[in-house]
Amino acid sequence: MEFTVQQIADLLQGQVQGDGNATVNQLAKIEEGTPGALSFLSNAKYEPFLYTTGATAVIVSKTLQLKAPVAASLILVEDPYSAFSTLLEVYQQAVAAARQGVEEPCFLGENSTIGERHYRGAFSYIGKNCKIGQGVHIYPNAYIGDNVTIGDNTVIYAGVKIYPDTVIGSHCTLNAGCVIGSDGFGFAPQKDGTYKAIPQTGNVVLGDHVRIGANTTVDCATMGSTLIGTGTKIDNLVQVAHNVEIGKHTVVAAQTAFAGSSKVGNYCTIAGQVGVVGHVSIADRTIVGAKSGISKNIKEEGTFVQGAPAFDYKQNLRAMAVFRKLPELQKQVDELREKL
Amino acid sequence: MEFTVQQIADLLQGQVQGDGNATVNQLAKIEEGTPGALSFLSNAKYEPFLYTTGATAVIVSKTLQLKAPVAASLILVEDPYSAFSTLLEVYQQAVAAARQGVEEPCFLGENSTIGERHYRGAFSYIGKNCKIGQGVHIYPNAYIGDNVTIGDNTVIYAGVKIYPDTVIGSHCTLNAGCVIGSDGFGFAPQKDGTYKAIPQTGNVVLGDHVRIGANTTVDCATMGSTLIGTGTKIDNLVQVAHNVEIGKHTVVAAQTAFAGSSKVGNYCTIAGQVGVVGHVSIADRTIVGAKSGISKNIKEEGTFVQGAPAFDYKQNLRAMAVFRKLPELQKQVDELREKL
Amino acid sequence: MEFTVQQIADLLQGQVQGDGNATVNQLAKIEEGTPGALSFLSNAKYEPFLYTTGATAVIVSKTLQLKAPVAASLILVEDPYSAFSTLLEVYQQAVAAARQGVEEPCFLGENSTIGERHYRGAFSYIGKNCKIGQGVHIYPNAYIGDNVTIGDNTVIYAGVKIYPDTVIGSHCTLNAGCVIGSDGFGFAPQKDGTYKAIPQTGNVVLGDHVRIGANTTVDCATMGSTLIGTGTKIDNLVQVAHNVEIGKHTVVAAQTAFAGSSKVGNYCTIAGQVGVVGHVSIADRTIVGAKSGISKNIKEEGTFVQGAPAFDYKQNLRAMAVFRKLPELQKQVDELREKL
Repeated sequence: MEFTVQQIADLLQGQVQGDGNATVNQLAKIEEGTPGALSFLSNAKYEPFLYTTGATAVIVSKTLQLKAPVAASLILVEDPYSAFSTLLEVYQQAVAAARQGVEEPCFLGENSTIGERHYRGAFSYIGKNCKIGQGVHIYPNAYIGDNVTIGDNTVIYAGVKIYPDTVIGSHCTLNAGCVIGSDGFGFAPQKDGTYKAIPQTGNVVLGDHVRIGANTTVDCATMGSTLIGTGTKIDNLVQVAHNVEIGKHTVVAAQTAFAGSSKVGNYCTIAGQVGVVGHVSIADRTIVGAKSGISKNIKEEGTFVQGAPAFDYKQNLRAMAVFRKLPELQKQVDELREKL
Repeated sequence: MEFTVQQIADLLQGQVQGDGNATVNQLAKIEEGTPGALSFLSNAKYEPFLYTTGATAVIVSKTLQLKAPVAASLILVEDPYSAFSTLLEVYQQAVAAARQGVEEPCFLGENSTIGERHYRGAFSYIGKNCKIGQGVHIYPNAYIGDNVTIGDNTVIYAGVKIYPDTVIGSHCTLNAGCVIGSDGFGFAPQKDGTYKAIPQTGNVVLGDHVRIGANTTVDCATMGSTLIGTGTKIDNLVQVAHNVEIGKHTVVAAQTAFAGSSKVGNYCTIAGQVGVVGHVSIADRTIVGAKSGISKNIKEEGTFVQGAPAFDYKQNLRAMAVFRKLPELQKQVDELREKL
Repeated sequence: MEFTVQQIADLLQGQVQGDGNATVNQLAKIEEGTPGALSFLSNAKYEPFLYTTGATAVIVSKTLQLKAPVAASLILVEDPYSAFSTLLEVYQQAVAAARQGVEEPCFLGENSTIGERHYRGAFSYIGKNCKIGQGVHIYPNAYIGDNVTIGDNTVIYAGVKIYPDTVIGSHCTLNAGCVIGSDGFGFAPQKDGTYKAIPQTGNVVLGDHVRIGANTTVDCATMGSTLIGTGTKIDNLVQVAHNVEIGKHTVVAAQTAFAGSSKVGNYCTIAGQVGVVGHVSIADRTIVGAKSGISKNIKEEGTFVQGAPAFDYKQNLRAMAVFRKLPELQKQVDELREKL
């Protein structure tokens, strides 16, 4: 899609300084801008790039005082970062709106309904008795089992697998290859040392505006529901076991794992490669550093922990600082012991 | 599916106390029971919920002495937990039996055979020369390459990918998105610092009753076979590299990785996010704590290790206890040195 | 495929000692050889197996002095390891060449082109405006979004998901279930504690001879490109976040994660389960030990680090040695304090 600089300025309620008829067809960082690109300058640190960028146009603050001549056309706005975000959204919406209709062959089971303005890609599968809202995008090779409910404007990318009975809110994004509702990992140990599978009869319930990363797995509950609250964002390759409950507006980075029946509060930030053991509870607004292992309840809101097993973040930093010098510490102790 | 309380009691050889004509249509935990739900009470800790539950019926021990009136109908049995397990199984079998037949389009290659009572979902793919047993379920978008053998009653969930020449036993469960038989990660370093791929000509062999988790990956052997023994249960997002051999009735939790040619014994328990380096051997009945790194052979049966690198579990706990207080220990040593 | 020992010898420019008419139909390790198998002996450590192997034929060095009678036919060559590698490649090429043509149904979008000698499996999907080279293999259930470019002889295994606008070089191998170009994990925190998704408008660019493991995920850039250089080999279940740049001929083992905008040099070796935090830079030829966490730039080429957070490998080994004995160290300090 191609636009004139003036068109972009009108959209952003900004003013053009330079050539309003120049055209742009892609977005780029200011330090990587090439002809045809539209960039923005928000962080003062990047201002030097403004005078050298190859971008055709740059969105800047209307209070900016130029320190040298600029080749690019400028679009002057109140807040460049926020203007650029608006632009990105408009772009995304245009892309999304363009994707509508049904590609054949695709599969729609008995008694399933799907709302208007939807997209169903080739080889996508929808089982029986599903209720799917308006404006939902279901990409090729996605699988949606029986009795699944999906809210309006949710996007199911290619190859997503959703087991029967799952409930998904509106405005969710499920990235390619994620699995929602797989069998929980529950086995009853037998007297002879073998294991017998415990049937998993529950489901998964996702709130609205939930984001699930590529190839992330969310198991169904043994009974009841595995829950992920509204607004929560989960990165790629994360494991959410049976009966886990994650609150609202919590962010979880890649490759983290929540063991069975663990509970995570609202507004938490869980970094990457963290492990949370089964049945523990994490209070609201907890921050967990990367690679940490949570083995006990975190009861106080706003706690910041690090380490495996995790404890107070700053205390962990200090302990790690001594850890590096342990051989020296050992030597000092050896010397003291000799002296005595 | 809906049943009367009396029908459930008959199935479990139990006795009804209360309304035998009441109907139930779902299973629920006693603390979450709602009308229409059937629950059970096994652990005495949960007895208070019996007097407040909204469930329509509860399975209880026939020796239970009620301490207050109960609104729910009761089903009196010898062992409530075991009765409930029986019920879950019957339910699961009913669900499985209901799934039979072939959805179109699906692909069946030349010279491939498949037994009776099977299910093949739309967009499932079976290559050439495959031998697939009776009662096998192959969900939509699953891929089975050429020359694959699958035993009776195995379930292949949606989007599973099975490379050519794989051998899978009977009664296995492969959860959605898992990959069996991907290329082993083997490269010959060249003199110029680049790498040349070593062709991987082996396969993967799974025993009977093996469970593979969602999005888990099992690489084929360079030559010979990557082996996973009968009864072994593997959770989601686990990595099993080329030529790994895992014994029988071993349990492996999520996000654990076994590097090339490592060997794991029978009846082991490997917790989540563990890493096992290449070519090491782990004895039968070993227990490995979460996030541990196994870098050496474990020769003694029944060893319990923790840490990265891992050593004796209790010793590790003690070392971790001192680790947390390292800054204090350093201070104590500093003071001692000043005094001397 | 079946060959006589003489045919193999001719292919390898070697000489037969024993029965040139014996036939072989599979490759095996010398210690696992069974009738019909062809093995090789390169490492002197394995020579004892030469005298007991059940293999029909063994490739050996022409300088080898036999210490006992050998039942197998021998093929004498200059360098057995290299001869066997050649054989593996010929085998692989034969297998690859055999796979050609189009299985129906499959989907090819408008204005997309694909070169000669390609394979497209059933239920594979190619979007609009794609440019796909010669000899490309696209296995069943693979998804290729709009505007994707793929070079010659690249192999896309079953169920791979490639988002729109991705650029893939020639001779690449993408193992089953990997995801290329998923949404980057970028969210702008709002004043009320919720998050707003930042549209991800960039793409992923893979060089030539890149290998991506099964169920690995590579996110697209927010703007610009996530880059993986020529010759780089990535194992299974690895996470590559938005705007990451990995150089050429670098090897990355399973379950490692690179956070947003991290940069990795050329000829690096990154072991398994490593985590690299966002925006850090790693110099060429760096070696990172398993389970390490990289939280700072590594500026010097050829550095070898270990630990989380990582520091010098040897120093880490020494610190870990003291760590194990921390309870003892604490006791020594306690005794010293009592004495003073």
